[in-house]
Amino acid sequence: MTGGALIGIDWGTTSFRACLMDARGNLLDQRLARAGILEVENSAFEEVLEREVGAWLAAAPDLPIVASGMIGSRQGWVEVPYLRCPTDARAIAAALSPHVTTRGRRLRFVPGLTVPGDLPDVMRGEETEILGALRDHPAATLFLLPGTHSKWARVAEGRIEGFATFMTGELFAILKGHSILGRLMAGTTFADLAFARGARVGLDPDPAKGGLLHRIFSARTLGLVGDLAPDDIESYLSGLLIGIEVREALAFGSSPDRRRQVVLVGGTELVARYDRVLSSAGVQAIRAAPSAAARGQFHLAQLAGVLD
Amino acid sequence: MTGGALIGIDWGTTSFRACLMDARGNLLDQRLARAGILEVENSAFEEVLEREVGAWLAAAPDLPIVASGMIGSRQGWVEVPYLRCPTDARAIAAALSPHVTTRGRRLRFVPGLTVPGDLPDVMRGEETEILGALRDHPAATLFLLPGTHSKWARVAEGRIEGFATFMTGELFAILKGHSILGRLMAGTTFADLAFARGARVGLDPDPAKGGLLHRIFSARTLGLVGDLAPDDIESYLSGLLIGIEVREALAFGSSPDRRRQVVLVGGTELVARYDRVLSSAGVQAIRAAPSAAARGQFHLAQLAGVLD
Repeated sequence: MTGGALIGIDWGTTSFRACLMDARGNLLDQRLARAGILEVENSAFEEVLEREVGAWLAAAPDLPIVASGMIGSRQGWVEVPYLRCPTDARAIAAALSPHVTTRGRRLRFVPGLTVPGDLPDVMRGEETEILGALRDHPAATLFLLPGTHSKWARVAEGRIEGFATFMTGELFAILKGHSILGRLMAGTTFADLAFARGARVGLDPDPAKGGLLHRIFSARTLGLVGDLAPDDIESYLSGLLIGIEVREALAFGSSPDRRRQVVLVGGTELVARYDRVLSSAGVQAIRAAPSAAARGQFHLAQLAGVLD
Repeated sequence: MTGGALIGIDWGTTSFRACLMDARGNLLDQRLARAGILEVENSAFEEVLEREVGAWLAAAPDLPIVASGMIGSRQGWVEVPYLRCPTDARAIAAALSPHVTTRGRRLRFVPGLTVPGDLPDVMRGEETEILGALRDHPAATLFLLPGTHSKWARVAEGRIEGFATFMTGELFAILKGHSILGRLMAGTTFADLAFARGARVGLDPDPAKGGLLHRIFSARTLGLVGDLAPDDIESYLSGLLIGIEVREALAFGSSPDRRRQVVLVGGTELVARYDRVLSSAGVQAIRAAPSAAARGQFHLAQLAGVLD
């Protein structure tokens, strides 16, 4: 395609999203495929690349490619060592890991980030989305990326100072799929009031209400005493878990100043749920543009000087 | 069998345990079967009763039977309404729910207990174990019954004032069976040091360490950075979750006075794990005799005057 200057790929565990951008970072075309690294057999990553973006490369064989996400992990194509926080776009760009395929395609893999310590933390892919969202919100200091493992990142003057992972999405999925709470659930429609109620219970800072291990049992007992309909249990539990996450995340590692505003990154329906809970918690949620990953890949390519 | 005065049955979701006792509460014989209420088809509870304890009843057809546990729930034989806390042995004995089978067997079902409120709580079966353990530890004020859903009960002068449920055991099972943490686990041997390490992390009151949703992710990241062997992840996560439970449970609803000593009720290997974590938390664990349920059933039968 004429005018293409960069291919950015957000290549995660379950999905593959490629964007063709022009020299100013405008989106020219995109490809979305269920070709996450877990879906690719025998590490046939090069075949997936050619299949998905071969048409773009046919027109311009030398197009640089920046790939972020789990593709740079031990289970991915090339393992790129984690970069330690605090770090910034310039340091990440300097650590892009180059790779030339058998067909001569020139890839650069984005390193993930780590927070060292007693309880270390890691991310791969989200750092690029944060850098992209930062382009639109340069003064923001707290970023939230909901998902299976949601990430909260603290940023100051363009530097990612640290972050924390919360296993909320995965916990919700396994409680729904495999616990007694899931067996009590009926219906699949989102129940607005039940979600809000769960969120209130999750956000409640009263220690007399107990922690997560105790509070989630209310999804059973409220049903048992006839105070929560089976149709409402799923939405209640969703609100409850997100409420607990928001309370925990705001309480730890965030200065009171930071707790006023959060940039919400992501394009899923989940983002709308977090938006509501943040608002209940008195935090202003600012939704980042859905193309954060591509914006970040473009910015890294610029800083690394690969666009010329 | 000669000398039998009472049959006590602890009839739960997954197991059935019957005890034949003499007029002083001594154990004469017992039967353990995988005949929990979920295993019994078409509500054929009477058939299970006859199969398991018919031999005892053949010798003494009029033996009174006291049954505690989920058998008195909506999914059980006869639904017995919950009794509200605070309550005591006398009130529970007065609320035994009589039932005569088609063969003329005289059963009394023990009511479960509830704590009303915004986040109500329930138990069925554990109240009888607590009453039994109280016979040996009349001055104890805090009782812990580990399990799929572990229960912490506050007692004063023989009165069960309130209790709280923690879904720790079930959460551990589904994280192990269905989450990314489970997929990283290797080996099945209990790893002592890893368990102790997890418990330390779980007990740590430092809010900068985050809550459960964040801390459990360390079972992944410590492995990723080479600081926890795959063989150790399962034990680490077990210690971590029990540590979090103990910290949460001691922090809420318990006076400092109560936090010094806990009576641990149950006969499983799990009890040994809780014992270790309590000890790390500076709490003295007193192990109740394993026959707590039978002791409780006998005491209720005495108070209800059904032994004559």
